[in-house]
Amino acid sequence: MVRVNSYYQTLRAGYLFPEIQRRIKAFAAQHPEADLIRLGIGDVTEPLPAACTDAMATAVEAMGTRTGFHGYGPEQGYHWLRQAIAQHDYQQRGCAIEADEIFISDGSKCDTSNILDILGDDNRIAVTDPVYPVYVDSNVMAGHTGPANDQGCYGGLQYLPLTADNDFRAPLPATPADLIYLCFPNNPTGAVATRAELQRWVDYARSHDALILFDAAYEAFIQDSELPHSIFEVEEARDCAIEFRSFSKKAGFTGTRCAFTVIPKTLSGHTRNGDAVSLWQLWSRRQSTKFNGVSYVVQRGAEAVYSAAGQAQVARLVTFYMDNAAIIRQQLQRLGLAVYGGQHAPYVWVKTPASMNSWQFFDQLLHQAHVVGTPGAGFGAAGEGYLRLSAFNSRGQVEAAMTRLARCKLQ
Amino acid sequence: MVRVNSYYQTLRAGYLFPEIQRRIKAFAAQHPEADLIRLGIGDVTEPLPAACTDAMATAVEAMGTRTGFHGYGPEQGYHWLRQAIAQHDYQQRGCAIEADEIFISDGSKCDTSNILDILGDDNRIAVTDPVYPVYVDSNVMAGHTGPANDQGCYGGLQYLPLTADNDFRAPLPATPADLIYLCFPNNPTGAVATRAELQRWVDYARSHDALILFDAAYEAFIQDSELPHSIFEVEEARDCAIEFRSFSKKAGFTGTRCAFTVIPKTLSGHTRNGDAVSLWQLWSRRQSTKFNGVSYVVQRGAEAVYSAAGQAQVARLVTFYMDNAAIIRQQLQRLGLAVYGGQHAPYVWVKTPASMNSWQFFDQLLHQAHVVGTPGAGFGAAGEGYLRLSAFNSRGQVEAAMTRLARCKLQ
Repeated sequence: MVRVNSYYQTLRAGYLFPEIQRRIKAFAAQHPEADLIRLGIGDVTEPLPAACTDAMATAVEAMGTRTGFHGYGPEQGYHWLRQAIAQHDYQQRGCAIEADEIFISDGSKCDTSNILDILGDDNRIAVTDPVYPVYVDSNVMAGHTGPANDQGCYGGLQYLPLTADNDFRAPLPATPADLIYLCFPNNPTGAVATRAELQRWVDYARSHDALILFDAAYEAFIQDSELPHSIFEVEEARDCAIEFRSFSKKAGFTGTRCAFTVIPKTLSGHTRNGDAVSLWQLWSRRQSTKFNGVSYVVQRGAEAVYSAAGQAQVARLVTFYMDNAAIIRQQLQRLGLAVYGGQHAPYVWVKTPASMNSWQFFDQLLHQAHVVGTPGAGFGAAGEGYLRLSAFNSRGQVEAAMTRLARCKLQ
Repeated sequence: MVRVNSYYQTLRAGYLFPEIQRRIKAFAAQHPEADLIRLGIGDVTEPLPAACTDAMATAVEAMGTRTGFHGYGPEQGYHWLRQAIAQHDYQQRGCAIEADEIFISDGSKCDTSNILDILGDDNRIAVTDPVYPVYVDSNVMAGHTGPANDQGCYGGLQYLPLTADNDFRAPLPATPADLIYLCFPNNPTGAVATRAELQRWVDYARSHDALILFDAAYEAFIQDSELPHSIFEVEEARDCAIEFRSFSKKAGFTGTRCAFTVIPKTLSGHTRNGDAVSLWQLWSRRQSTKFNGVSYVVQRGAEAVYSAAGQAQVARLVTFYMDNAAIIRQQLQRLGLAVYGGQHAPYVWVKTPASMNSWQFFDQLLHQAHVVGTPGAGFGAAGEGYLRLSAFNSRGQVEAAMTRLARCKLQ
C-alpha cells in the first residue's frame, strides 16, 4: 500500500493567499461592478528591462541555430552569470564571495524550501514572526514541527517577534536554535537590519554553531548606502550563513524565473556521527541530482542585469516602486495611521486602526475602498493587528487606491 | 549545532558521469591531439524548432511591454499549455486525462526526484536494473535505502533486472512493492513496453495497492503505431500511476527547460492513520509552496510544439535522431555485436564483446576509436556487460564514429 507524506496533513488548510482569493471572489460576486485595486501579493507590474529582453531575444535566436544552440547547461548555472554576480553583488561591496559559491536557480521560493533537503531533521529551528510562509510550511512538510495552535504557530518552532514593540529588532532565541531564518529587508514588515544587527546574528550563530538562512530578495530596494545588502558584509558570516537572492523583484523576473543561492565553501554542518561536512558539497550534489539548471535564455537575461544599461534600467525600476511606496506611506500617515517599512523595501506595514484585527481591516479596505491588502496575521501570530500593502503596481493604481483610502472611515 | 542530512553520505562517490569525465580528461591529457566523439550523455545537438523560437521571440518582446508583461504565473503552469498537452498527448490517443491533471515543470529530473516529497518514508521500492540513476539517488538522499554493495546495489531497494536474458521484460517484484519506477521507451536499454506489458504492471499495482512512477520522456521516439506512448493508454492506470514527460529530447529543450507530470485526480495514497489522501492535492500543495512555475517565455515555446508547424518540425527532429540510431545499430551488427534498443528510442544498448566488462569496453572505445559511450554498469549491476551509445549527435559525427569503430579490434 502506497504511503503518503503524512506531515502534509499538519499544514493549516486556510493558507493565506487562497483565503484572500476566496474573500475577493465572494466580494466580486456580490459587487461585480467594483474595480478592485490589488496591493496584496508582491508581484511586479512593470515590463522587463530592455537590456534583459534584448539579451533574451539574442539568446532565443541563437537557440535556433546549430552553432548557437545550448543543450544541458551546468546544474549550478553558467560561469559567466555566476562571475557577474560575484563581482557586482559581492566583490564590489567588499564581500569575499567567489563565482563558484553562487548557485543559479529558478527561484528563491524553491531554494529556501529545497535547502532543507541537505539539512538534518533534528535541527532546532527559529523564524521571525511575522514571516514569509514558505520557511514555515516547508518545515511542516518535512516533519520538523508539531501541529499548529489557534494562532497558527506550529509546535517545535521558535518564533521571534518582529514588531513595533521591539522596534522590528527580533530577540535572539531564548532557547538555542540550530537554524535561523532571517529576511532583510523584511517581507512582510519592510524592516531593515543595520550592519550591527547582522553582526549580532552572526555572533549568535557562531557561538551556537548555528546556521543562518538569510533571504536578501529585497536588497535592491535599500536606499541608505550605510545599510548592508548582504549578510556577507559581516565577514564571519562565511562560517555560518547561506544567502538567497532573486531577480524577481528588482528586475521584474517573477514570470521569467531566475534567482541564486550563495553557499560559502567554508561552511559546514555535522552528520549524526559528528563528522563535519561541507554544505557547498552537499548542495552541489543535491542540485546535480535533482535539478537541471536554469534555461539558457533566462540566464542570458539575468546576465544583462549587470550590464551598464541593465544597471541603469533596474535602478529606474527600483526608484519607480519606491516612489509608489512613499506615496502609500504619506497617505496612510496623513490618515493618522502608524506606518512602518516602505523606506528600504517595497512593502508598507501598517498598524490596523482602532482595535480592528488584521482580517477586519482587510475586509474594511476591500469593502469600503475596493483595495486588496494582505492581513498581517496571515504571516504569523505577531503579524496580528497589521496589514501589508505592496508598492508593486502602476502609479495610477497606487494613486487611485490612496484617493479611495482617504474617503474611507478608517477609524 | 547544525546537522546535515546524513543520508547523503550513503551515496556512492563514483557517480557515473563524473567518472566518465575523469577518464576522458585523463585520456585527453595524454592524447591532446585526439578528436573525441561523444555518444555518451543523452544531450541533443540540433537547434530548437523554428516554431518554438518564433513563439519565444514573440513572448520575449511581450515581456518588454506593459500590456504583454507576465508576472507570477500559476505554479501548475498556464492553462493554455496544459490544455494543449491534454488534447494532443492524451485525449487524441484515447487517454482520459484532463488539463488540470497536468503540472508543468522545469524538468523531469526535478519531478521524478521531487515526487518523493509527497510520499512516505516507509514505502517498499522497486526499480528496474539498469536504471536512470536519479530514481535511485533521490531515494538514497531521502533515507529510503541502506548502503550500497560492491555492485552498487543499495540495501532495501528491490532491483528488477531488464536484460537480454529476460528479453527486456522485467519480472514482477518477488516481494510486494509499494512504489515502482518504470521507464519506457527505456533509458538506458532502449527497450519498449507493449500495451500488454503495461497492462501487466497496472494489474500488479492495482492488486498490491502500489503506485507506478512512469517515465515516458522518450515516447516521441516510438516508431511502431501499435506501441503505447502513455501508461494511461491502459485505462486502469488512472488509479495507480503518475506519468513524467519532457520536451527535452523530442523538441530539443535540454537547455530550455520544460517538462510535465500527470497526476490523475483519481489517484490516492494513505497516511500513517490509514486515511486515503489525493496525490493530486498533495502535489498541488507541494508545487504551490516550493515552486513558482516555469518561465512564461519557455511555456510559450513549449506550447508551439503543438502547433502544426511545431508538430512537423518535431517529427523531423525525431526522424533525424532515429536515422542516427539506425546507422549505429547497423554498424554494430555488421561488426558482429549483439545490439538492442535504438528502434523506438534514441539509445542503442550493445553487449560488450568477448568477456569484457562495461568499463573495459568503454576504455577500449575511448582509446582505440576516440568514441565516448556510457558503461552499462553505471546504470546498475544488471547493466554490467553492456554499453550505451546515444543517437543524439550530428550525422557527420555519428558516421565518423561508426567508421572509426569499424577499424577497431573489437573482439
